[in-house]
Amino acid sequence: MPSIAAPTSRFLRACRRQAVDATPIWLMRQAGRYLPEYRKIREKATLIQMCENPALAAEVTIQPLRRFDLDAAILFADILLLPRAMGLHLEFVKGEGPRLTPPMRTAKAVARLREDDPRQTLGYVMDAIRLIRRELKPGKALIGFAGAPFTVASYMVEGGPSDHYLVTKAMMHGEPQLWKALMTKLARATSAYLVAQVEAGAQAIQLFDSWVGELSASDYERFVKPHSKQVLDAVSKTGVPVISFGTGNSGFLGRFASAGGDVVGADWRIPLDEAWKLIGRDRAIQGNLDPILLASGPTKAMLAAAKAVLERAGGRNGHIFNLGHGVLPMTPPERVKALVDFVHDASRR
Amino acid sequence: MPSIAAPTSRFLRACRRQAVDATPIWLMRQAGRYLPEYRKIREKATLIQMCENPALAAEVTIQPLRRFDLDAAILFADILLLPRAMGLHLEFVKGEGPRLTPPMRTAKAVARLREDDPRQTLGYVMDAIRLIRRELKPGKALIGFAGAPFTVASYMVEGGPSDHYLVTKAMMHGEPQLWKALMTKLARATSAYLVAQVEAGAQAIQLFDSWVGELSASDYERFVKPHSKQVLDAVSKTGVPVISFGTGNSGFLGRFASAGGDVVGADWRIPLDEAWKLIGRDRAIQGNLDPILLASGPTKAMLAAAKAVLERAGGRNGHIFNLGHGVLPMTPPERVKALVDFVHDASRR
Repeated sequence: MPSIAAPTSRFLRACRRQAVDATPIWLMRQAGRYLPEYRKIREKATLIQMCENPALAAEVTIQPLRRFDLDAAILFADILLLPRAMGLHLEFVKGEGPRLTPPMRTAKAVARLREDDPRQTLGYVMDAIRLIRRELKPGKALIGFAGAPFTVASYMVEGGPSDHYLVTKAMMHGEPQLWKALMTKLARATSAYLVAQVEAGAQAIQLFDSWVGELSASDYERFVKPHSKQVLDAVSKTGVPVISFGTGNSGFLGRFASAGGDVVGADWRIPLDEAWKLIGRDRAIQGNLDPILLASGPTKAMLAAAKAVLERAGGRNGHIFNLGHGVLPMTPPERVKALVDFVHDASRR
Repeated sequence: MPSIAAPTSRFLRACRRQAVDATPIWLMRQAGRYLPEYRKIREKATLIQMCENPALAAEVTIQPLRRFDLDAAILFADILLLPRAMGLHLEFVKGEGPRLTPPMRTAKAVARLREDDPRQTLGYVMDAIRLIRRELKPGKALIGFAGAPFTVASYMVEGGPSDHYLVTKAMMHGEPQLWKALMTKLARATSAYLVAQVEAGAQAIQLFDSWVGELSASDYERFVKPHSKQVLDAVSKTGVPVISFGTGNSGFLGRFASAGGDVVGADWRIPLDEAWKLIGRDRAIQGNLDPILLASGPTKAMLAAAKAVLERAGGRNGHIFNLGHGVLPMTPPERVKALVDFVHDASRR
């Protein structure tokens, strides 16, 4: 296993709630369509082709760090590469988003899901990680990631994005054994996938539970949390810091945090200090500027909102600046630069 | 002004946190596409035609009360009838939802918004209210409603539904005077519209701020709350109870409640007792079953979840049972009956 990054990494120190010279910042979906150099590559390759090509994946992962003084890179990949490696067919339909077939709705379908060694089936991800680590400058950390079991399972059960998670919720309540079988298998595969990412060189891991906020607190507790916890615990054992991220979950943020993670993400709806209280002061927090403010409106207002986030963090150890969700495609790159520089300058100890 | 309903109305008593013989229940969007008798009328008339025809509006308002022992009817109308009465063109585009033109993005456009007497411009709504009141059985209350200024303004600014409220948020931060002018005018018009509904016979009012959960707590405080408060205060003066409803706002539910309302709605994400604590025990609460559980999965699981909501309410005065959002079109009517009967039976004092 490659060595964990030197303690000079602001990002890794903040994950551990150690003192830092300035608040670290990275942005979800910082490698993406808002960058012309990303779009140039994306024009010639599908999303899956980009992921499967370690050189391209490494290139787009590093692109935002060439422009901006971000403290961490996040691996370019897709959360649905894992169900694909488990035997589902994945395609991206224009204007509709991902489509996964066949949908996982029977015990037979779940039993058929493969759990091959991710170092083989997702070897291209590990290759990309190794390439990125070689290119990253000292002090810049690489974050690996996967989708959390609920978010990935919802795509697998619905067959694609969903407004209401009707089939998923019906399965939870109507066929709890089938749901449990799917989530158990998925949690195991996700853990193996993330441990392999750490072995390949990822210095931190983020678990994305992007749609967990569609659940009630009690459904989360009963049908999701044990499986998320399994993954978070498995990754924690590798020794790298783990970030647990969800959106729309302010109604059960304390419960969400209790599943684990060294760092818990907060979306933009809840004031950061109130989120931190719910998460617990003994944990690090990541967040939580509204991504819309980064995309539109006056730069001055965006920086004022970023300042308010820093003020709510109160200079305490254990704050990683981020958005409350991903960078939007229409975001002007120069605003990202303004934000990154501002966060470092304004938080300089 | 017609007399306020007799104290035999469970619903109205609960709004006032008075003792009731059983927990009252009504459901957002209870008059809607999940009912075959609604679809039959809808086949022959557009949504706007249905709203403009008091007999049809009254008919679909009352339909669910013929089938189910609901404690209140909610006026059949659309939140965008008000901006239409203010001079915007409204149409519903199949598969896209409402379209409002021209979008409100300049001081000139906002200045042009008309504030005619809603008893004239929306006289058909008042006529429908009078018809419904005549037909409603004793003990059944009629709820009037409007969209809250933020939710309606977001449609007016964006020109229709929006994923990200990019233009709306840019206007808040970039042209706060223009935003304020729009919200001030809208709050005044909404207040007049709701007061006219009460004069026509509405016995309670719900203010729907369906998309308020897209905001950060601080944007809500600064750009929205004063205007919501203005409307809630104006309606409160009429003497009928006012329900303030939002979704996705668990991250700032206390702030949302502080804008006013005798009753505050909670969406399904947050446990009812925790929401009540944030809202304040001196207020009534409405909610909060996940509408997806009503639409799908085993009836037994749906009823178990309804029981859990009642348990979290703890038999305290001031709980109105509802969903955390509207009834979905695929909901089987027999499940609605099962829910309504269960809530009454299980909560019988």
